[in-house]
Amino acid sequence: MDHKGRQQRLQSALPVHRLDALLVTHLPNVLYLCGFTGSAGVLVLTETKSVLFTDGRYTTQARSEVRGAQIVIGRKTPLAAAADWLATHGPKRASRAYPFRLGVEGEHLPVAARNRLAAHLPSPFRLPEAPGLVERARMVKDAQEIQRVRAAVLMGAGIFERALAKIRPGVRETAVAAEIECAAHQAGAEAMSFPTIVASGKRSALPHGRASQSAIPARGFVVCDFGVILTDYCSDMTRTVYVGHPSFRERRAYQAVKEAQQAAVEAVKPGVSVSEIDRAARKSLQNGGLAKYFTHSTGHGVGLEIHEAPRLGAGQTEILQPGMVITIEPGVYIPGRWGVRIEDMVVVTERGCEVLTPTSKELIEI
Amino acid sequence: MDHKGRQQRLQSALPVHRLDALLVTHLPNVLYLCGFTGSAGVLVLTETKSVLFTDGRYTTQARSEVRGAQIVIGRKTPLAAAADWLATHGPKRASRAYPFRLGVEGEHLPVAARNRLAAHLPSPFRLPEAPGLVERARMVKDAQEIQRVRAAVLMGAGIFERALAKIRPGVRETAVAAEIECAAHQAGAEAMSFPTIVASGKRSALPHGRASQSAIPARGFVVCDFGVILTDYCSDMTRTVYVGHPSFRERRAYQAVKEAQQAAVEAVKPGVSVSEIDRAARKSLQNGGLAKYFTHSTGHGVGLEIHEAPRLGAGQTEILQPGMVITIEPGVYIPGRWGVRIEDMVVVTERGCEVLTPTSKELIEI
Repeated sequence: MDHKGRQQRLQSALPVHRLDALLVTHLPNVLYLCGFTGSAGVLVLTETKSVLFTDGRYTTQARSEVRGAQIVIGRKTPLAAAADWLATHGPKRASRAYPFRLGVEGEHLPVAARNRLAAHLPSPFRLPEAPGLVERARMVKDAQEIQRVRAAVLMGAGIFERALAKIRPGVRETAVAAEIECAAHQAGAEAMSFPTIVASGKRSALPHGRASQSAIPARGFVVCDFGVILTDYCSDMTRTVYVGHPSFRERRAYQAVKEAQQAAVEAVKPGVSVSEIDRAARKSLQNGGLAKYFTHSTGHGVGLEIHEAPRLGAGQTEILQPGMVITIEPGVYIPGRWGVRIEDMVVVTERGCEVLTPTSKELIEI
Repeated sequence: MDHKGRQQRLQSALPVHRLDALLVTHLPNVLYLCGFTGSAGVLVLTETKSVLFTDGRYTTQARSEVRGAQIVIGRKTPLAAAADWLATHGPKRASRAYPFRLGVEGEHLPVAARNRLAAHLPSPFRLPEAPGLVERARMVKDAQEIQRVRAAVLMGAGIFERALAKIRPGVRETAVAAEIECAAHQAGAEAMSFPTIVASGKRSALPHGRASQSAIPARGFVVCDFGVILTDYCSDMTRTVYVGHPSFRERRAYQAVKEAQQAAVEAVKPGVSVSEIDRAARKSLQNGGLAKYFTHSTGHGVGLEIHEAPRLGAGQTEILQPGMVITIEPGVYIPGRWGVRIEDMVVVTERGCEVLTPTSKELIEI
């Protein structure tokens, strides 16, 4: 991974945003920029320096993982160590008239941490909220990242095939989830991307129905939504299968979701706004009168985090670019009755997109 | 769980802290207070009202889970929905002279969210940082919580027995972790408490050595540190075993850590400061000259979160009370060579403590 290049691009962007330094506290951003995977770390970037602060638990790990940044092992918290360092290395040319502007990650840094930092730093410091510079950089994946995402997605697809064999009436949702998670660990996944969703029968109407102790009923949809983390990158996929024989209405709804998903995939290409992708899915569902049951956004970026920019929803203005990796996951949920969701991961290419998820979307009846 | 009682105790404490309302945004706190397990929720407590805000994905789930609070499904984010509600229900008697004081969870609420909230609310609002009221309440577990913790700990102990059979030279650390995690899922765990640590040979010197692709060497320590989440409550345990025959120095170090762990456990009783527990472990290690290799704190609270209050470290002032559930986990790490850690979970009782982890601490040679 080009950690040094990522840091340099960010460092050269600091003056544009009127920042003397950036305080990176969000751990996936720290990992993205310097490779550190520990659970306590803060990265400070000035125009010329790059320093990772961590604590004594991570001395050896930081030395083996971190690229392109000096390492400081703090005696207190990494944030306190960063503040100490900034107090001496920061504001050489700063004054009340020209304070040292240390950008903070406002979407992640807690209010109390910001206040402690402000109390710790001498007066010519300012702590403006920096725009999501690292999040923006992370939106567009390079070839090596796409390769890792692809490997995670393929692992996920293989696991789904194994889970399918487990789905039958009377089996608990948690047993299906256990099969998925065991298969993931045996395949070498580092972790699951999020708590596995297995929602059967009436529970399929819960868009985020984590696997429960409920047994799969004799007849109805089963929504399986899960992902693995492999070499730091997440996968995310959803398939909905039917146990028994679906009614005409259920089959039609499944077909409608499948078509909406396809319509959204076909809309994906560089230069298009994410809200247009969302609109494509919703418009497709309007034909069957199902749009009002599609109660979440159409998708989201995936990478080091399971949910990252961009979000594919109404009112979002992000423009798709080659290298973005997103989910396309419309769903229809009839409260108290049933639900269907189909989700692929796609990567935006120069001319359109490539669907990474290889799994069939035909309705499987079990 | 006594959700209503928890809310009422907090509500009655609001005036003491000069708060008209508390904005609970930290999800484990939301779960503790009202039972909601979704990934997007905000709870607002005034002296007389209790309202959970979530979004359309969680309509059905909120209705089935939430106890003691009204539910509002927002069209935007839960925080925006809470702000809208507060703007109309909040400051009836508020004025510039007597503003409505809405306490926020400063350790969790991001700076940007606080600023959006401030921009959204009319002027007679103040947003002071509330002390960690919910965290303080959560420190002391009730009987039902202890029962759940106990069940999680026992599940973890059973899983360790199964993992032991897998540990032998040449097996990858990730394969041992997979065995642990599979066993957990098959036993019905909802998730792991944290990424499983399996650190063998030189890697045992990494206090947070997540399982890697490294093969277990022919000789050396193997540190296994993992936990499960069962009915929302976490377990946490560490055992260190030896593959092959330990040297005299390694055996002595293991013994020293075992004694330090025992010394700390024996120091646990109501009325004692957490820093005294930490000191007991360190003092014990001083005898063998190993205290300088003990580079982290002695333990932490465990409950709905794997790390919660109190922290058992030098300089911490919390006083132990019956019902607190904590880990006792001293370790010794010789950088580049090896490490040993032994960790139990204990519950503070009326007269001392009960060790919840049933697993033997004698050195196992494999």
